[in-house]
Amino acid sequence: MPAINHQFRLAARPVGLPKDSDWTRTEEPVRDPADGEVLVRIMYISLDPAMRGWMNDSKSYVAPVGIGDVMRAGTAGRVIASKNPKFPVGAHVVGMLGVQEYALSDGKGLISVDVGRAPLPVYMSALGMTGMTAYFGMQDIGKPRAGDTVVVSGAAGAVGMVAGQIAKIKGCRAVGIAGGKAKCDYIVEQLGFDAAIDYKAEDVRAALGRHCPKGIDIFFDNVGGDILEAALAHLALHARIIFCGAISQYNSTTPVRGPANLRSLLVNRASMTGMIIFDYADRYGEAARELAGWMAAGRLKSREDIVSGFDKFPETLLMLFKGENTGKLLLKVAGD
Amino acid sequence: MPAINHQFRLAARPVGLPKDSDWTRTEEPVRDPADGEVLVRIMYISLDPAMRGWMNDSKSYVAPVGIGDVMRAGTAGRVIASKNPKFPVGAHVVGMLGVQEYALSDGKGLISVDVGRAPLPVYMSALGMTGMTAYFGMQDIGKPRAGDTVVVSGAAGAVGMVAGQIAKIKGCRAVGIAGGKAKCDYIVEQLGFDAAIDYKAEDVRAALGRHCPKGIDIFFDNVGGDILEAALAHLALHARIIFCGAISQYNSTTPVRGPANLRSLLVNRASMTGMIIFDYADRYGEAARELAGWMAAGRLKSREDIVSGFDKFPETLLMLFKGENTGKLLLKVAGD
Repeated sequence: MPAINHQFRLAARPVGLPKDSDWTRTEEPVRDPADGEVLVRIMYISLDPAMRGWMNDSKSYVAPVGIGDVMRAGTAGRVIASKNPKFPVGAHVVGMLGVQEYALSDGKGLISVDVGRAPLPVYMSALGMTGMTAYFGMQDIGKPRAGDTVVVSGAAGAVGMVAGQIAKIKGCRAVGIAGGKAKCDYIVEQLGFDAAIDYKAEDVRAALGRHCPKGIDIFFDNVGGDILEAALAHLALHARIIFCGAISQYNSTTPVRGPANLRSLLVNRASMTGMIIFDYADRYGEAARELAGWMAAGRLKSREDIVSGFDKFPETLLMLFKGENTGKLLLKVAGD
Repeated sequence: MPAINHQFRLAARPVGLPKDSDWTRTEEPVRDPADGEVLVRIMYISLDPAMRGWMNDSKSYVAPVGIGDVMRAGTAGRVIASKNPKFPVGAHVVGMLGVQEYALSDGKGLISVDVGRAPLPVYMSALGMTGMTAYFGMQDIGKPRAGDTVVVSGAAGAVGMVAGQIAKIKGCRAVGIAGGKAKCDYIVEQLGFDAAIDYKAEDVRAALGRHCPKGIDIFFDNVGGDILEAALAHLALHARIIFCGAISQYNSTTPVRGPANLRSLLVNRASMTGMIIFDYADRYGEAARELAGWMAAGRLKSREDIVSGFDKFPETLLMLFKGENTGKLLLKVAGD
């Protein structure tokens, strides 16, 4: 039985980008599972833009992480002690177990995964929450029809890369917006996007006009801000905007400016719909089966960007907001 | 056969509120209808906020009115000469015949109405385009369920007053936002709204908090701007925003500021959907039948605000943007 569990706890509510002083590193002994509980050795911690929102003390879709609480995070690991017959010792699981090395769980929200079918990190990427976010956003809100023009922002990120590949699977034209030549080359050459726009090098609004001559039917937005405004300027009639994220604004220290051209929704009879993956919990099975099928058929690729070392959590989280990751950003905290 | 048709034509694209110099008053002889045509004596001209958008030279859902063209407008009148068997002399019709006293039409888009069942102005109000706008917005986008909290902006206007009454018919709680005590009293006492917020006298955001303790399930927005921002701050989970208009912004001469809290759509998994009534042309019959049924049953009231005198068109249009009308604003240009 391991003696010590290390944790990152929220020390202060960040202003702008989280600083080292916003975290407290703690350690505590690991206790044995009680009846119904399992003890999980966490192997991977998921880094997600949404985590920034959870650190704020404002009304949102989940309660804020409390000051002094272990930081909320998606995790994957292995059961090392169990008093819950659903999760025997040795089982691999994913769940929201937080930024720590070990976690006790009563099994609620924990999902068993088969590492014989896909490596554990893939269950946090294309076959995990981010892949399912792309799946439900595209399927339920985007409602793609063959021939539609689909634009994805944050296209080299964990959600965006899957959203764009689903667009291609559905017979759509996929245009990705990403930062830098390497990411743009990756999504076109490796993932099959029809075109990429480098927001660091190009005028996104003008580029959308060039790449979407018939307008945008579906905009899968992970970024918000100026990128949303650029896309609003090119909506096709009856366009659907999947409002999945707004990473450009999460660390803003000044009041956010809304899109000046929101009236494009009216003129184009378009819709913009917010989504949170947790609402689809009772349909995760459907998404996992379909995503796994596409992956087995070679139509869907997963990519993870893995940083090793539990202690690196604070700076690894910042990679998201600096746009430094390609694919799903994970922190590896224990070997397989 | 009348000799002279008077018209208002667009002389210049307005900057801000339309000025007298933006119009040219013209007259021309009326000619006889050709085969398939009817000649209509226009009796009422509809004044609608959307007209302001049609005066701009920008991409929108219909082509801009050209400089020198008769101003586009909804109208109601009587057929006074006909070579189209569908519209005999004496028939009352509604259609987009423009700001003039007489119009020739090939019958396309013209609808016959029965003035034995309702007065002609009602076919431009609760039983007309504005009533149908409220109908399709509420039914198709709002999808009201009994017990929902519905907030309507521009609630004493032509569309808003019907939207709120439909909310009540559907078993919802209806809260209206309007300007001034008289309008607020009217929508509560005469139309059955549960509450009214006077945006000229109250902090709308705070008032919405008081009147919508469980949040807003449906926001029927005719106003946009600060009112939209206030409503976004109080959305319930899975709220639906019907983006029908943004009258607060149509005469803006400075860049429009988008809502700073658009992220409320994401947090609340809410949707915002633009609508234009012309998209529903093939279902006008459905709406007209249902609206007429509610009216016959005493569950839906129509109200028109009628100004007499063709020459008063320019200043009457401005009443909309100053919030001076209660109910559907019409210009009466000929007696019955």
